Amino acid sequence: QRQQLLKIKEEYDIGILGPNTVMGVINTANGLNTTFERDVMPRKGNIAVISQSGGVGACLLDWACFYKIGISKFAFMGDKIDVDDVDMLRYLGRDKETKVICLYMEGVKNGRKFIEEARKTVEKKPIIALKGGIVQESAHRAKSHTASMAGSNEVFEAALKKAGIIRVENMEDLMNAALALSKQPPMLGDNVAIVSNVGGPAILAADAVARNNLKLARLSGETKGAIERLYPGVDATNPIDMIADARADRYRKVLDLVLTDNNVDGVLVINMLKSCFFEPEDAKAILEVAAKHPDKPIVDVPAGGEDFELVYKVIGESSIPLYNLPEKGVKALKILRLYGKIIGNIKV
Amino acid sequence: QRQQLLKIKEEYDIGILGPNTVMGVINTANGLNTTFERDVMPRKGNIAVISQSGGVGACLLDWACFYKIGISKFAFMGDKIDVDDVDMLRYLGRDKETKVICLYMEGVKNGRKFIEEARKTVEKKPIIALKGGIVQESAHRAKSHTASMAGSNEVFEAALKKAGIIRVENMEDLMNAALALSKQPPMLGDNVAIVSNVGGPAILAADAVARNNLKLARLSGETKGAIERLYPGVDATNPIDMIADARADRYRKVLDLVLTDNNVDGVLVINMLKSCFFEPEDAKAILEVAAKHPDKPIVDVPAGGEDFELVYKVIGESSIPLYNLPEKGVKALKILRLYGKIIGNIKV
Repeated sequence: QRQQLLKIKEEYDIGILGPNTVMGVINTANGLNTTFERDVMPRKGNIAVISQSGGVGACLLDWACFYKIGISKFAFMGDKIDVDDVDMLRYLGRDKETKVICLYMEGVKNGRKFIEEARKTVEKKPIIALKGGIVQESAHRAKSHTASMAGSNEVFEAALKKAGIIRVENMEDLMNAALALSKQPPMLGDNVAIVSNVGGPAILAADAVARNNLKLARLSGETKGAIERLYPGVDATNPIDMIADARADRYRKVLDLVLTDNNVDGVLVINMLKSCFFEPEDAKAILEVAAKHPDKPIVDVPAGGEDFELVYKVIGESSIPLYNLPEKGVKALKILRLYGKIIGNIKV
Repeated sequence: QRQQLLKIKEEYDIGILGPNTVMGVINTANGLNTTFERDVMPRKGNIAVISQSGGVGACLLDWACFYKIGISKFAFMGDKIDVDDVDMLRYLGRDKETKVICLYMEGVKNGRKFIEEARKTVEKKPIIALKGGIVQESAHRAKSHTASMAGSNEVFEAALKKAGIIRVENMEDLMNAALALSKQPPMLGDNVAIVSNVGGPAILAADAVARNNLKLARLSGETKGAIERLYPGVDATNPIDMIADARADRYRKVLDLVLTDNNVDGVLVINMLKSCFFEPEDAKAILEVAAKHPDKPIVDVPAGGEDFELVYKVIGESSIPLYNLPEKGVKALKILRLYGKIIGNIKV
């Protein structure tokens, strides 16, 4: 079969994806969809996904469709007798519809070429990778599964670092990271400000900042003073608890002051609805302020289930990525910081 | 105010929760609900939640309502001038409707007594804790927020260990852990078997097993032989990929063999719908087999978004906890293992 395919390739001078690619490719721009399932057309967007595994690819596709994540291209790699990861990176690096590239890989065949191509690509757009087959037993399984040598986790880690690829730990983190990178600029320093209408979740976010090797921004005296003059009773020490009666206007003013502060590199906003005065429509204020500060990343956390859904209806389609837990919002900022460091290193 | 409340307490010989408890208490058994929100009555169940913070409590309540997690009692602690954590543990330890106790805490006032009461409680039912205010900055905020000294993270960690309390890192992990403990028995050894209808997600689960300090079970020759005789083409090396055409009957037979194997202490099942033959109704087979092996924990992972929802409709209300990612299913088994160790140590 292999020989026959390669013969066809030569005869017609075409590229061949697969074989054994399970579901082939999706291109949301022109509506091409070779998958054989009903209702698996993700919405148009700027995230490309390449999966070596059919099962993980199917899961990521299901995730993207269900959580309305915008996709540019989706490819199931299969046995790679012709088109391989390097070709894919080269293509997606030039693809105008793609802003972020997600990879699920169990191994890579032409390591050096892959690293070279990745380094060139990440100058223009970030690459995020999830690697399966880390422990010996699963590596053995990966070998029989996609016929790729897994190699040791340490070697892989070093290679990804060299290539400037951001590594994540699971499929949800992959999608959440892609969401952040597709919507927000890289973070150019470590200092995070937390602006919230509740105390406890802001404290959990602050803990997560430390766990993710970021720093809690120390606001300038000017910023702190301005906030406290505007809202007596609010202690504007980061994490800033604006108190449960904060609505659009307070969010707008405080966020503007915080984003203007040179000591702040990125902002995590928490807006809870339950036991607070905040209404979903108030979230539009975050969009307005963010538009004034396009160079600093901002993520929003309407923590919980229903709260998340209600705020999602108002600003879910906007350029502000939303997360349902403080810790996930912090992880998103960390990813934006990592990409900031990667571009910084390339430029130097 | 404080004095007045204490005077009332003495006069009428009643316990006082709070003040400043934000939303008070919920008792799903008798329908008592002092929260002032619309539509925040979680469904009846056996998980109790005690939150020191109103914001985190509100978020957990929102989570429980939205994700249909069964709650027995829900309490917002407030300033604790009378009823405190120790009283709460004593009460919930005896409460017939409560099987699992969840705590969100920023600090504890009477440390030694708390540890003593917790140790007594965990002999009967597990306690899971999420601690906020770990880093210096957030600890400062926690102090002004709930007037509790946070203490160092290490001291807290040691105290929880001594008390036999299981610690988690965020609100989602707290709820996911509670779900596992409320539905499944503790795991009495480290050996996990993975039974899946796809390769990639099973490989990610195997990686997570190692990350969580569990072991991939080595199936006995007998089990392996029996599976491979039944299904030629299936390589029954753990993680077991039963191949994409596996339906109820294959799940039933393979799971039964695996759960019978003495080398297996707990099982993670993966059933994807996309690009597989599996139908949501097939998930009932998992219930049947689990009922035959009540002493070994089993969790199910219909990975993704829509796939999860479809399977949830069929077995979501059953005694099998469901997770939308392989890694979350593995974390659930780890929690069941931790509780197994805690009871084991108490008995020795």
